[in-house]
Amino acid sequence: MIIDICLSPALYPSYQKEGDTVVVVDIFRASTTMCAAFSNGATAIIPIADIELAKKYKHEGYLVGAERNTRRVDFADFGNSPFEYTADKVQGKEIVFTTTNGTRAIEAAKQSKSLFIGAFSNIDALRERCVQVGERVVVLCAGWNNRVNIEDTLFAGALAEKMVKENGATPGSDAVSMSLHLWETAKNTPIQFVQSSDHYQRLINNGAEGDAAFCLQANTLSVVPWYHYEEGKLKNTPLGG
Amino acid sequence: MIIDICLSPALYPSYQKEGDTVVVVDIFRASTTMCAAFSNGATAIIPIADIELAKKYKHEGYLVGAERNTRRVDFADFGNSPFEYTADKVQGKEIVFTTTNGTRAIEAAKQSKSLFIGAFSNIDALRERCVQVGERVVVLCAGWNNRVNIEDTLFAGALAEKMVKENGATPGSDAVSMSLHLWETAKNTPIQFVQSSDHYQRLINNGAEGDAAFCLQANTLSVVPWYHYEEGKLKNTPLGG
Repeated sequence: MIIDICLSPALYPSYQKEGDTVVVVDIFRASTTMCAAFSNGATAIIPIADIELAKKYKHEGYLVGAERNTRRVDFADFGNSPFEYTADKVQGKEIVFTTTNGTRAIEAAKQSKSLFIGAFSNIDALRERCVQVGERVVVLCAGWNNRVNIEDTLFAGALAEKMVKENGATPGSDAVSMSLHLWETAKNTPIQFVQSSDHYQRLINNGAEGDAAFCLQANTLSVVPWYHYEEGKLKNTPLGG
Repeated sequence: MIIDICLSPALYPSYQKEGDTVVVVDIFRASTTMCAAFSNGATAIIPIADIELAKKYKHEGYLVGAERNTRRVDFADFGNSPFEYTADKVQGKEIVFTTTNGTRAIEAAKQSKSLFIGAFSNIDALRERCVQVGERVVVLCAGWNNRVNIEDTLFAGALAEKMVKENGATPGSDAVSMSLHLWETAKNTPIQFVQSSDHYQRLINNGAEGDAAFCLQANTLSVVPWYHYEEGKLKNTPLGG
C-alpha cells in the first residue's frame, strides 16, 4: 500500500494515478463539519461548488450549508461550523453543502476510484476504511484558495504516520516526508502549533475559536463520508461495508 | 518586507502579486549549476523550456546545457552538474540552458518585477540583493514535475529564517511557517535529511552523489544571477549594482 499527499487541489493533476483512493481534507472546517453532520444523522450531503446552484436547491426545499471566506452565506440554513449541524436539524435530511475550499477539492478528485472525507474527528475510522479499499491512498489537502495550509498538512502527516507505522504503507513522494516531519514537531501541542496559521486567525476574527479546538481533536466521531459517483452525493459508510 | 514561499510552479498563480521579487530555486541542480557557471565567468545564460529550440541554438554555435530526468541530452555540451561548467569552457561565453524543472519555474515567474536565481551556494549574496530591491520576496521552488520536493523547501526555509531573523521580514503565508519548521529540523544535518528524498535517489542512481553534497553547501559562490527581461537572459548581478 502506498500513501501519498497532495498539498493543494491545484497540484492534484501531478499526483493523480488511476485507481487512487482519495481522502479530501479541509480541517478548518468543511471536512470536520461534514463528519459532524453525518454523525448527527444526516442521510446525504450534496457537495457543490457554485453558490447560485446552492440558492436554487434552497428554493426547491433543501437544507443548505454555504460558507464563503469563513462566513455563512445569507440565504443558507447553516454556515461551516460543526456545531451548527445538530441532530434536531439534520437527522434524516439531505444537505446541500458548498464551502470556499472543501468542495473545490472534492471536484478535483471526482475521477478517483474511491473518495472519502477525512478529519481529525474520524481519523481512525477513516484509516480502517482506507486500508480496506486502497492500494494507493492520496490525501488531498483543500488548502486555502489553492495555497497550502498548516492544518491540512498536519492531518495528512498524522494519517500518514499511522498508515506507515501500523499498516506498513510506503511513502509515495517527498510531500509525505515533509508532512511526517511537520506532524512529528506539532503532535504534542497541535493547537499551539496552528495558532500562527492564516486560517486560525481568520476563525478567531469570526468568533470560531471553539471550532478550531474541536477540529483538531482526534476520534470524536466514527463516520466515514464516502462519495457515491452515480448519485453525486456523499453518504456515510458503514464500517466493514 | 514580506517573505513568501511557493512550493511548486503550478501554485505560483495563487501566490503572485504585482511588484514581486521572485527567487527561483532548483537546488538539485539547475539553480546551483547556473550559479557555478556565472562564478566561472559565463557572461549570460539563456533559459529556455523547449529542447528543440535548444538544438536550434546549438546549430547556431551556442554552448548548450540540456538535461532531462537527471541526464544530459545527447546533443548538448553540458548536462546539469555544477562541476561541468568549468572556467576553461564557460569563461566569456553565453550558454543556452534547459532543464526538467528549473526553466519551467523561470517561465512561470517571468511577470515578476525582479527574478533572481537562488541556491545554498549563493544564499547570503542572494539575501543581500533581495533586501536591496524587494518589498515582497517570493521563493519559487521548482519542485519535480510540479510536485513539491524536500531540498527546494529546505532552501526556502533557510532563506526565510535569515530574512525573518536578520532583516525583520514578515512571513507571508502558512508555507513559510511550514518551511521554517522543516529547516529547523534539518539544518544541522541537511545531507542526512535529504537522503530519503526522491531526487537524491535519482542523483545517486546517475552517479551524481558528489553534486548533491555541493548543492547543499552554503556560500561557496558570491554571484546572483538576475533575469534581464528585455534581453531574455540571465546575467550576473554586481552586488550593490
